[in-house]
Amino acid sequence: MNLGRIIGRVVATRKDDRLRGIKLLLLQPLRSDQTEIGGPIVAVDSAGAGASEMVLWVTGKEAAIPFRRDVPVDACVVGIVDSADVSG
Amino acid sequence: MNLGRIIGRVVATRKDDRLRGIKLLLLQPLRSDQTEIGGPIVAVDSAGAGASEMVLWVTGKEAAIPFRRDVPVDACVVGIVDSADVSG
Amino acid sequence: MNLGRIIGRVVATRKDDRLRGIKLLLLQPLRSDQTEIGGPIVAVDSAGAGASEMVLWVTGKEAAIPFRRDVPVDACVVGIVDSADVSG
Amino acid sequence: MNLGRIIGRVVATRKDDRLRGIKLLLLQPLRSDQTEIGGPIVAVDSAGAGASEMVLWVTGKEAAIPFRRDVPVDACVVGIVDSADVSG
Amino acid sequence: MNLGRIIGRVVATRKDDRLRGIKLLLLQPLRSDQTEIGGPIVAVDSAGAGASEMVLWVTGKEAAIPFRRDVPVDACVVGIVDSADVSG
Repeated sequence: MNLGRIIGRVVATRKDDRLRGIKLLLLQPLRSDQTEIGGPIVAVDSAGAGASEMVLWVTGKEAAIPFRRDVPVDACVVGIVDSADVSG
Repeated sequence: MNLGRIIGRVVATRKDDRLRGIKLLLLQPLRSDQTEIGGPIVAVDSAGAGASEMVLWVTGKEAAIPFRRDVPVDACVVGIVDSADVSG
Repeated sequence: MNLGRIIGRVVATRKDDRLRGIKLLLLQPLRSDQTEIGGPIVAVDSAGAGASEMVLWVTGKEAAIPFRRDVPVDACVVGIVDSADVSG
Repeated sequence: MNLGRIIGRVVATRKDDRLRGIKLLLLQPLRSDQTEIGGPIVAVDSAGAGASEMVLWVTGKEAAIPFRRDVPVDACVVGIVDSADVSG
Repeated sequence: MNLGRIIGRVVATRKDDRLRGIKLLLLQPLRSDQTEIGGPIVAVDSAGAGASEMVLWVTGKEAAIPFRRDVPVDACVVGIVDSADVSG
């Protein structure tokens, strides 16, 4: 599971029917010290993430789990991060 | 999920039976600022993508979801992108 | 399967319901000689891992297997490592 | 999905029972301009690929789909490529 | 599918119950010319691999297939390699 920040939106009017009604977010992957890693990816959302929030996201087929049906997605925001702290 | 652009076609006459009738696209992966990232890959299409359109695509087993049956594909175009905007 | 060390915690109050009650660990991936490889990732735990312990972890959909239900996770600690020895 | 060329064979007499009777190919991944990318991998075949042919192959669990049963493979040739052309 | 060599063992006394009785191997990934690629990973075994043998291994959820039940593993040795030859 990875950390990231919501930085924008993707709009796609013509799309696979299973994606209707699902918001597409532009997400910048982050390291735990909140520096950027790689470029932005597109993710869907099951946690109600808002603009510029730090989030927890998953990749792969498990990204479809929150939708309780088969949707063709491979990245999903599953939580809003309050803190990510290295201990000791 | 990733962004990309349709740049060509792949033709394969001899292939696994489950791929019959499925169009094979040559797709250039893009960053959200539309610069290229890596080299072209081959993807199938469930969104009716045309030449040179900017698209949204997924990887992995979820690429088979739009076909509602087991097809041996690992990359699928699932939407035509109208815009991918960084906010604020 | 990979080696790593537990280096901290991630707290996410707002999250997908399936993640309720599941501890989120900050994990530093390690090589077998215990040097670091890449940056920390977020993992869940099915082995009772404590702070600074060396662990064995898996990635992908199989990370959900210990939970015996569909949870949207893609990295899970599955063992505490006693030793990782190159032979001969 | 990826392009590649069959460059050799792998022989494994002792192996998981589910792999009995399945040919193991040495495959060089290629870019769409037919230059090499990375080193050779081992793939199984569901398209009748012959030596030095340019092929289309898939990775991940979907590599097992052509076998219509659970086989422990993660790369499978699914087509022989006639052409991979960038348009316009 | 990948080539590799068994270079050691990993011992984990405290672990997920589904891993009980499953041997954990330290495996060095190899190219087809038997040079090393990347660092060692941890894999389970369904082919009876011994120390220093050259093996064929798979990654991902398919690594659990030889166990005919859900085990949280993502890399599994599935064959002992007799030869990996580039033809012609």
